[in-house]
Amino acid sequence: MWKPDRHSRQPLYEQIADHIEQRIAYGEFPPGSLLPSERKLAAELGVNRSTVIMAFDELRATGIVERRTGSGTRVSTTKWEIAPKHTPNWKRYAQGGQFLPNLPFMRKIREALTRDPSLIDFASGELAADLAPINEIAALMSEHRYTSYLGYDNPQGYIPLRQALVSYLAEHRNIRATEASILVTSGSQQSLYLITQCLLSPGDAVAIEDPSYCYSLPMFQSAGLRLFRLPVDPYGVHPEDVRALYKKHRIKMVFTNPNFHNPTGTVLAAERRKQLLEAASELALPIVEDDPFSLTAYEGTPPSPLKSMDEIGSVLYIGSFSKIAASGLRIGWMVAPREIAERLADARQQMDFGLSVIPQQVAAQFLSSSYFAPHLKRLRMQLLFKRDLLVEALNKELPDLIRFAVPSGGLHLWCKLVPEIHDGRLLEEGIRRGVVFVPGSVYGSDSGFVRFTFARARTEDIPAGVAKFAEALRAAIGG
Amino acid sequence: MWKPDRHSRQPLYEQIADHIEQRIAYGEFPPGSLLPSERKLAAELGVNRSTVIMAFDELRATGIVERRTGSGTRVSTTKWEIAPKHTPNWKRYAQGGQFLPNLPFMRKIREALTRDPSLIDFASGELAADLAPINEIAALMSEHRYTSYLGYDNPQGYIPLRQALVSYLAEHRNIRATEASILVTSGSQQSLYLITQCLLSPGDAVAIEDPSYCYSLPMFQSAGLRLFRLPVDPYGVHPEDVRALYKKHRIKMVFTNPNFHNPTGTVLAAERRKQLLEAASELALPIVEDDPFSLTAYEGTPPSPLKSMDEIGSVLYIGSFSKIAASGLRIGWMVAPREIAERLADARQQMDFGLSVIPQQVAAQFLSSSYFAPHLKRLRMQLLFKRDLLVEALNKELPDLIRFAVPSGGLHLWCKLVPEIHDGRLLEEGIRRGVVFVPGSVYGSDSGFVRFTFARARTEDIPAGVAKFAEALRAAIGG
Repeated sequence: MWKPDRHSRQPLYEQIADHIEQRIAYGEFPPGSLLPSERKLAAELGVNRSTVIMAFDELRATGIVERRTGSGTRVSTTKWEIAPKHTPNWKRYAQGGQFLPNLPFMRKIREALTRDPSLIDFASGELAADLAPINEIAALMSEHRYTSYLGYDNPQGYIPLRQALVSYLAEHRNIRATEASILVTSGSQQSLYLITQCLLSPGDAVAIEDPSYCYSLPMFQSAGLRLFRLPVDPYGVHPEDVRALYKKHRIKMVFTNPNFHNPTGTVLAAERRKQLLEAASELALPIVEDDPFSLTAYEGTPPSPLKSMDEIGSVLYIGSFSKIAASGLRIGWMVAPREIAERLADARQQMDFGLSVIPQQVAAQFLSSSYFAPHLKRLRMQLLFKRDLLVEALNKELPDLIRFAVPSGGLHLWCKLVPEIHDGRLLEEGIRRGVVFVPGSVYGSDSGFVRFTFARARTEDIPAGVAKFAEALRAAIGG
Repeated sequence: MWKPDRHSRQPLYEQIADHIEQRIAYGEFPPGSLLPSERKLAAELGVNRSTVIMAFDELRATGIVERRTGSGTRVSTTKWEIAPKHTPNWKRYAQGGQFLPNLPFMRKIREALTRDPSLIDFASGELAADLAPINEIAALMSEHRYTSYLGYDNPQGYIPLRQALVSYLAEHRNIRATEASILVTSGSQQSLYLITQCLLSPGDAVAIEDPSYCYSLPMFQSAGLRLFRLPVDPYGVHPEDVRALYKKHRIKMVFTNPNFHNPTGTVLAAERRKQLLEAASELALPIVEDDPFSLTAYEGTPPSPLKSMDEIGSVLYIGSFSKIAASGLRIGWMVAPREIAERLADARQQMDFGLSVIPQQVAAQFLSSSYFAPHLKRLRMQLLFKRDLLVEALNKELPDLIRFAVPSGGLHLWCKLVPEIHDGRLLEEGIRRGVVFVPGSVYGSDSGFVRFTFARARTEDIPAGVAKFAEALRAAIGG
């Protein structure tokens, strides 16, 4: 990002005016479009708002931009158009389209993090840089040559990676799969997207957990699905609810995240797993099992996936590297009957022509390397440490104002706020104090819950982050 | 892919029966699903069809599979289900979904290439391995450390790559862009997908060229768009046709590939460019300019993009590495007004959570490196050589049966077949003789055209490939 040069002899506001004029001339802001607000630009450029106002005044004086009270500053349409020419109404195009924009809270959080990367981040559901196997992957990349082939990939994914995944699934997840039943994706998100786009039709009813990560994804609404809820209690969802929803709404698919459920951290109880699979087989109902977290189990043996008990093939299994290694590799996978894997691969070809071979080669090497097991061990220890730090800080700062169950795996802690609180207000108070987290309503919950991700923040920032959150909560109660 | 062991003492058919049983047990073929045909399996495993028939007999004897005349061999539902259990009807799920499957010809070509990689490939629109900068990229990857960060990427793409693209666009394409107006995508395909999904709504009318690469993409139909044609003559599309379509159908967008048009190789004439931009500005109509080929111009200065003349911001510009460097990197880009770039980035986050940082780092390094310009020079020379070889072979083998214009850039040669021919029949005859190409109807043309890609086949295979095509054509005429 460009920043004004504080050592230059040209005044800051003039530098800024020149910079904005260039961005307009280069087409970033076409004639008629709205410029960012003075406040936003000031934050982006690291200057006082008054400096931006002076820059805008300068631009207005030359007729490059116009200001109408209450509607912000716009690029002038007269100055930039000699003849009566019309730029497309890009704003209307941006608002159109069948694919829905992200939820306002999610955009707010992302904008806050972009504006100020020093915010303590309890919101992003990913690993901190020091939890990812950066050195291991760098070592592998320097040991191997990766570019023997740089053409389009096999539609279902790079074959050696699928072979490595067959071994990984057998060894770590007790899942028997074949190369042809694996589809490599760019992550769980793409797996879910392909399922909602290609196996379901607008108007289809599906069951998702309540709360659920899926509610945070407008992709489910964009696909025109009717969503029905399976409440999650401390032992997970009730298989009876699946039967009831089938009876009432003829649901066509069940989406579940049985191990260290996002956001609640719940593990589906053994008896319910059996019953859930029985219900699925009785109703010929597909279950989509999202299993990104199970290998993070801090202690003991990680819980088995439903898929490992799936004798008749009811389960589409989704896995990913993002929460157990590195989200930046963009590597996930699905295990599915061959005709489903082929159908989704075919559709993905049309959407993006498949994945880059380089990260797939890296992932295959990493899975088969002697680095993988020690990395997992270290990850689990470090997550446990971070979880304990968060729990301790929450108990210290907010002993009476929150309630939570301590998760035994995953990246998140789900908190019930005792006082009645307005979600949006709380987030704003948090951002103002330098901390972000995800309001529970994003996951379909009523107001009054918060998801804390403890994996992403630097360990040393966790206590300070909780202190800031506690301040924000008290301010939101007071207000 | 598993192959039977010809040196084993176990008979081939038994090995195959065991192998299929394992694939069934592992869920690749759930109870009730159809196994691949005997012919297909025989090709896949490299054995005679009679061997596969013996393996199927073996499986049938144990009740693992069942055969009904005329409907192939299915996995038994009784053997694998102890209780009355029901596997989901995966076939119905695979056929459902709003996203359409690929065109039959495209699937047929892909299947043929998967079955027999020794086919001479005039169909895949990509560079041969020896045209890609494999050594250069391997050198860059060994010089640099790529994994300082492995988290989720910036939604619009890795910032140093966007900076490198700003310089690249200024230097090579005469396009002035800013970092914030660039969206890094996984290629032109993803750029088009995002535009059709996010900026247009079902029922919207759009104009595409005739013939056009876009017709080969069911994504346009999947998005529910109404497609109207702009016939391409030797000078490209007629701007008057754009006005007429706007008047009649209120088209909301124009898709064009003005430089070395796919499939015809046409370059839009200078005067028509001006008129097209005038029409766009008069009608406030957005133009999507797909520009993957222009830097392949075999001789002289590559043609400029429309975007370089776009004073008022009518053009969404799409570029890619796939046809000028390596398709396997999966790196493309769009230049768009900021609000459009942000909207598409937001949607892409929901579809796949963005791109891997590793290929983006590689691409940024490559663009800024001293390897880039010499690579382009070499690529252009080699494409010219391959084109000449193809033209010479076609003139020699089929002097009276085909007509074509010799392209001066791009990867393709577009052929009119003089005799009346059935597209599908011709393709089948070609596959039988060991050559694939794309029937023109895939691009929306009437029967009787063929697209030859000369960039993909090995240089030494081009004459033999044309000889095989000539045989196929004569057979198809005879038939």
